[in-house]
This record gives sequence, C-alpha cells and structure tokens, in this order.
Amino acid sequence: MKTYTFAKSQALFRRAAQVIPCGIYGHMSPAPLVPPTAYPFFAARGKGSRFWDVDGNEFIDYMCAYGPMVLGYNHPVVDEAVRKQLEQGNTLTAPAPIMVELAEYLVELIAGAGFAYFAKNGGDMTSYATMIARSATGRKKIVAIKGGYHGVASWMQGGGHHGVVDEDVENMIRIPWNDVAAFEKAIARHPGQIAGFIATPYHHPTFVDNELPAEGYWQNIRRLCDREGIVLIIDDVRCGFRLDIRGSHAYFGFQPDLVCFCKAIGNGYPISALVGTKKMQNEAAKVFYTGSYWFQAAPMAAALATLKELKRIDGPKRMLDYGKRLLDGLTEVARHHGLDLKTTGAPSLPYLRLTDDETLMQHQDWCAECTRRGAYFTSHHNWFMSAAHTAEDLQRTLDIADDAFKAIGTTSKGERRATNRARKK
Amino acid sequence: MKTYTFAKSQALFRRAAQVIPCGIYGHMSPAPLVPPTAYPFFAARGKGSRFWDVDGNEFIDYMCAYGPMVLGYNHPVVDEAVRKQLEQGNTLTAPAPIMVELAEYLVELIAGAGFAYFAKNGGDMTSYATMIARSATGRKKIVAIKGGYHGVASWMQGGGHHGVVDEDVENMIRIPWNDVAAFEKAIARHPGQIAGFIATPYHHPTFVDNELPAEGYWQNIRRLCDREGIVLIIDDVRCGFRLDIRGSHAYFGFQPDLVCFCKAIGNGYPISALVGTKKMQNEAAKVFYTGSYWFQAAPMAAALATLKELKRIDGPKRMLDYGKRLLDGLTEVARHHGLDLKTTGAPSLPYLRLTDDETLMQHQDWCAECTRRGAYFTSHHNWFMSAAHTAEDLQRTLDIADDAFKAIGTTSKGERRATNRARKK
Repeated sequence: MKTYTFAKSQALFRRAAQVIPCGIYGHMSPAPLVPPTAYPFFAARGKGSRFWDVDGNEFIDYMCAYGPMVLGYNHPVVDEAVRKQLEQGNTLTAPAPIMVELAEYLVELIAGAGFAYFAKNGGDMTSYATMIARSATGRKKIVAIKGGYHGVASWMQGGGHHGVVDEDVENMIRIPWNDVAAFEKAIARHPGQIAGFIATPYHHPTFVDNELPAEGYWQNIRRLCDREGIVLIIDDVRCGFRLDIRGSHAYFGFQPDLVCFCKAIGNGYPISALVGTKKMQNEAAKVFYTGSYWFQAAPMAAALATLKELKRIDGPKRMLDYGKRLLDGLTEVARHHGLDLKTTGAPSLPYLRLTDDETLMQHQDWCAECTRRGAYFTSHHNWFMSAAHTAEDLQRTLDIADDAFKAIGTTSKGERRATNRARKK
Repeated sequence: MKTYTFAKSQALFRRAAQVIPCGIYGHMSPAPLVPPTAYPFFAARGKGSRFWDVDGNEFIDYMCAYGPMVLGYNHPVVDEAVRKQLEQGNTLTAPAPIMVELAEYLVELIAGAGFAYFAKNGGDMTSYATMIARSATGRKKIVAIKGGYHGVASWMQGGGHHGVVDEDVENMIRIPWNDVAAFEKAIARHPGQIAGFIATPYHHPTFVDNELPAEGYWQNIRRLCDREGIVLIIDDVRCGFRLDIRGSHAYFGFQPDLVCFCKAIGNGYPISALVGTKKMQNEAAKVFYTGSYWFQAAPMAAALATLKELKRIDGPKRMLDYGKRLLDGLTEVARHHGLDLKTTGAPSLPYLRLTDDETLMQHQDWCAECTRRGAYFTSHHNWFMSAAHTAEDLQRTLDIADDAFKAIGTTSKGERRATNRARKK
C-alpha cells in the first residue's frame, strides 16, 4: 500500500513556527502526533468524510475537526443555509430573527429545555454555567471530575499549569469519575457551600480509556444535587448530538439544570449554546455575559440546518451504528494480527488502545501507519464519527488498518508484555 | 420628517423573551435603549453603512455591530475571500495555510510584532494575555483601570457582579485612568508581585466621557513596566484598526508587549488575535490555550482581506476624518438649538453627550429621536465609524439630528441647568 509524504506540510510548519507560538497550538498542535513525520500539519480542503492536506494526500477523517464536522465537510444543506443568511446579513447591530428561531428549535428539541443562549466557544458556556450556579445559589464551590476537560480558562485548567494561580482553582473540588461516595464526602466536607457539579455525560479524557457512567450514577448525582440545592451542569461539548439528538442526558436518562453544547451543533460554523431548564432562565438572565460576535447570524443558520438534518436522518443512531461496525471490524483485524485493540466510550466517539504495549508506543506506531495510508486519527484522543462516513470508508479503513499492522510488525501478546517488563527494569 | 415604528421587532422580542434569558442579552440587550419603543430590536439585513430592521426601516448605522463592521456590511472583497475559503474548507482537522499567511501579515503590519495567535472572542485574548504575563513573571497580580472593560470572564467583571466570587478578583488591582502615580503606588504596595498591566489605548467606558491618554502617560507606564519587569498588555479590541492600521499603540507612540485585537479585524467574521513582541513568543507557547473553532479558516481569510483593504484605502484615516466632519457638524447643529453636544474619545469611535442635562435624559431623548428617523446610535456607548460611511450619510445624519432636536424641544442651557438643580432637590 502506498504511503504518504508531507514535504509541503513540513515546510509550511517551519514558516508557521516563525510567527505563531508552537507553530500550531492547542489541540491541533503536532506535539502528540508521534512520529510527526507520519502526519499532515495543514489541511487544504474537505468534502464529506474526507480531507486533503497541502501535499494533496487524501484522508478518511476520524477526527472530524475534533468534533465540529458531524454531517460531512461542506455539507450542501448547511452551506446553503449559511449562504442565504450571509446574503442578508451576518454580524449586525442587532440580532437577526434566526436567533429566536434557533432558540425555539433547541427548546423544543433538547430534553427538559426551557431556554437557550448562544456564544462562540464551549468554554464560554462552561464558564457561564458555573457563574449562573454561583449566582443562583450564593455559594462558591464547584465540583468537577479529576481529569475532566471543560476548556482553557484558568479555573478549568487546574493548579500547576502555566498561567494558572492558586486563587483561580481555590473553589474547585475534583473528585473521581463514577464515584457517588466521593460527591457525598465533598458535600459533607463543604456543607451548604457547593454551587454546582459539572461533568461530561461520560468520562472521555485523553491518553487513557474512556468510561461510561455506572448503573444509576447520574440518577444518584441528580438526587444529591436536588437534596443539596446544587446546580447540575453537563458539559456536552464533545458528546453532544453524537449520542442522542435530544442531548446526551436523554441518552443516559437524567435531567441536568444546564447543558453546554458546541462542536457538532453547527457542522464547523462557530457557535456554542447553553440550554437550561425553565427554572434556570431567570438565574441566567442575572449574569452579564456577552461577546463581540455572539449574535452572528450565519452560524445560527448553520446550527438550525445542522440540527434539522441530524434529526431527519437520525444522525446519532447512524454514527453509533457505523462506529460499532468500524470498531468490531478493527478489533477483528487486530485479533488476526494477534493483538488486542480495546475500544471504550461510545462507538460514535470511541477511544482506542492496543493493550499489548502499555507504553502506548505500539499503538502510536499503528495510528501513524494508518494515517500515512489515508485513515486519519491520533493515538491520544477519542475519534469522532460523522454521518458522512460510508460503508466504503469503513471497508477502506479496515484494509488500511490491516496493512498498518503488517507494517509495524507484530509479536505475540506474551512476547510484547515480556518486552515491556524488560523495558521497565 | 417621517418616524419609524417597530411592531415586528416588538412581536419578535416577545417570542424571544420566552426562550432566551433577557430576550436579547449582553451588549445588544434593549435595556439601555431609552425609550425602547424608539429602537429596532432585530436586524434583517445590512449593506454598506446601512442596516434594515425586521420592520423594513433603513438606518445609517453608527454602532457598526458595536465595532466589527469596519468596511461596510457585506463588503464584496471580504465576502469573496470568505466564499473562496469556504469552497475549499472551513473548520478542518488541521489548520489551513491561510493561518500562516495571516500571522505573517500581522507580524509585518503591527508595530513591534513578533508573533500572532488566533481565537474567537476579545475576552479569549485578554484572558490569555494575563495568563502569559503570570507564566512569564511567576507573579500573580494584574493592574487594570477602574471602569475598564476587557470582557465577561469573572476576573474582568470585578467583585459584586452576579456569578463573580472574591477569589476571582483577589489578584486584580484597579487604579484610575491617566494616573501614573497610582501605578507607582501599586508597585510600591506589591513589590515584585505585579505580573501585568492591562488597559485600553485610551479610556472608553460607557455612560461617561471618554479620555485620551495624557501627554507622556504611555511612555511613563512603559518605563515603569520595564523597570519592574511587568508585562504591558493593550486591549485594542475596540480601538484596533480605527486609529492606526499598525495598532493603536503606534498612534500613541509606545510599544506594548502584548496587544489584543478583535472586532474590526474581520469585518464581522468571528476572529480575535493576540499579537506580541518576539520576546514574548516563547512565553505564549508555554500556556495551553485553544478552542473548538479557533482554526476556522473562513474568518482568517476575512481578516486578511479586511486588513489589506483597510491598509489600501487608509481606512483609519478615513474614519478619523469622516468622524471629525460628522462631530463638527453635529456640534454645530446642537449649538444652533442652544445645546452643548460634547464629543470625547477619537473621532472614529466617539462618545457623545449633551452636557445641558446631567441626568443624560435629554441626551437619551435626542438619540432616540435620531434613531426613529433613521440614524442609529445609542446614548450610553461610544459610536463607531466605518470606511463605508459616505458624505451623503453624514449630511443626512445632520438633517436627522436637526429634526430630532426640534422634536425633543429645547430650552436654553441656563434654563436646563436650573431644571436639573430643581430636580436634584
């Protein structure tokens, strides 16, 4: 199988490094791409489930812009809605009627919703939600999950990170995922002081296996929040619209007070939303919160078109189904090579790991070999399915995966473990 | 002169209030629009210097979407650049080459620039800048100006606001504008503890007169920052590209370490930028900072086209010149009616106030009467000029202003003051 090279990406990256911190920063930084020579750094164009890099290489994309691409790149229905809105107006001196239409649609669509609010970043909404929780309760403390990611604001990043000072995280209480007893302990240790509990619908950190909620977990958390008057906030930025069109809380069968959406909501057009219960609407209204482009009309038109299309085709079900088919196939291909490919999280945004090498080096090698053959994914982050992935994409990916396993060479599980033990000594 | 009515705006607002906190929130909230019946709440479309509301009323726009509109709504050059980029790709799994081109262009354009970094909100950049300052210095305290606005994050809003807790603002030191001695005092009180000084290029709060820097102010602040190793951060979100295409610090003749841009940079397409000196690039690289849509290519294409067009036509000079012509004209019209219209700040983003009534009620009435005649501005916020405003727009605005003064009725300055004194008793 032909493997790609990336001369133009690498040349452009050298230019980037002259004028941009890290060259490329944040979640798109090449730093966790190992080896970097196996990955494209710059994308030239996209269409459906595919993107093409600046060297002209074509990829089946399993990162989906790290979530925003959900219906396919340059989706005709979404792009037409945007084009029409742009013709009228985009960022104007007052909001466009599309804002009201979108809010009404979300309130109808999302389980238990009473209001909607729009911004640009997922982190805009997680910060806003914690401010609402504090304003509504008159309390300071926020409970979050250890290793949970809610954006880049200081309070989210946690102590020890560059630029974060102790006071930023003084009111954060971090507890383990799926640990109701830890929440009860936190409540007992800070009686009447906890304003909000924030978490993702299930635990999807990077570099480690993802974890679904244990039986009854969310129902117990909801019960404790009710008992203590704590605002229950769900960060549905990553899972949102990939599990259930009504919000991931509907998938897991519980009702939060506030839900933060971003990524998949607009198929790549920049919009985030906070959706809350009717009871929280007045509390939200008290907190002053705004931004220069938050009333931009085109992404609202994109979101309305994206959500309607996802509903029409039952996008979440398709992504779960195709994700499962892909994962079953990949696991089988791995087994054929004597390897154990473990998949965790939901099949529409799965985390994968070859368990035969605990250092993740073998897994990194395999991801790199797949990418340089045209199936793009990273080793450290969950993948994303889209409604644009086809049966042909899946088959092609299995073929690539097979060839990639051949390329990295394989040893039996026992041998690999022995090597690991030897490495550690 | 015909006056507008707003039945459709008001009906739409009633719908909005059912599903959106405050109906319309933040800086676009109708709350400071007095009386609300004089203002449109929803905009249907825009073209050049004009927008049309949902009732079909046409306005010469002096709010310019509160800053983002700088070349005119639906500007053909910017929109064509966006259309071309969208055809290729928008939010992809890796950044597009336009990111490097834009960074290179900004580093060339902005005085003293060594790097550029992109996000969505102005507040993304002011928060990032303070994190960089803290990371670079190992210190905690941030000095800011009393009444200065840098976005909606808790640390910016200040204590006492809904959702803000004491710890959020514990490291903020607020000093008066134009007060070098106050900065020296803050340094003496917190020796070796101040990480950064953040301020706008001049002081432009709402509801009160704006203030330009006193002679030597910025040079003195720069000198003290150098002496103490404090990172000097300019929030150029509002002034940026309306005073000098090289950044407002070039207009006032000093060199900051970090400059935050937003609003005018993309003519309404959502992008913000942090530009810093070469020395700060490595410090910026240490702080983890990112967002779902920050690599979106279309707004980068918009920004490159906007900046090139602003440079080609010397947009800032045009906005300063046309602003001055408009303000001179309005002042003269007011004088003709026996009133003192005071203008402060730069003519490209002036703050206006009728001084004859300290309660601002007369000024509110006049703004309302102008708006319902087709010249849109608010009474509490600085206006924004754009490069799309024409000589005909200015003349039409003077005619509207004249008719609006007739409508509110006028009394002599002496009488008005006597009335004010009587009111206060």
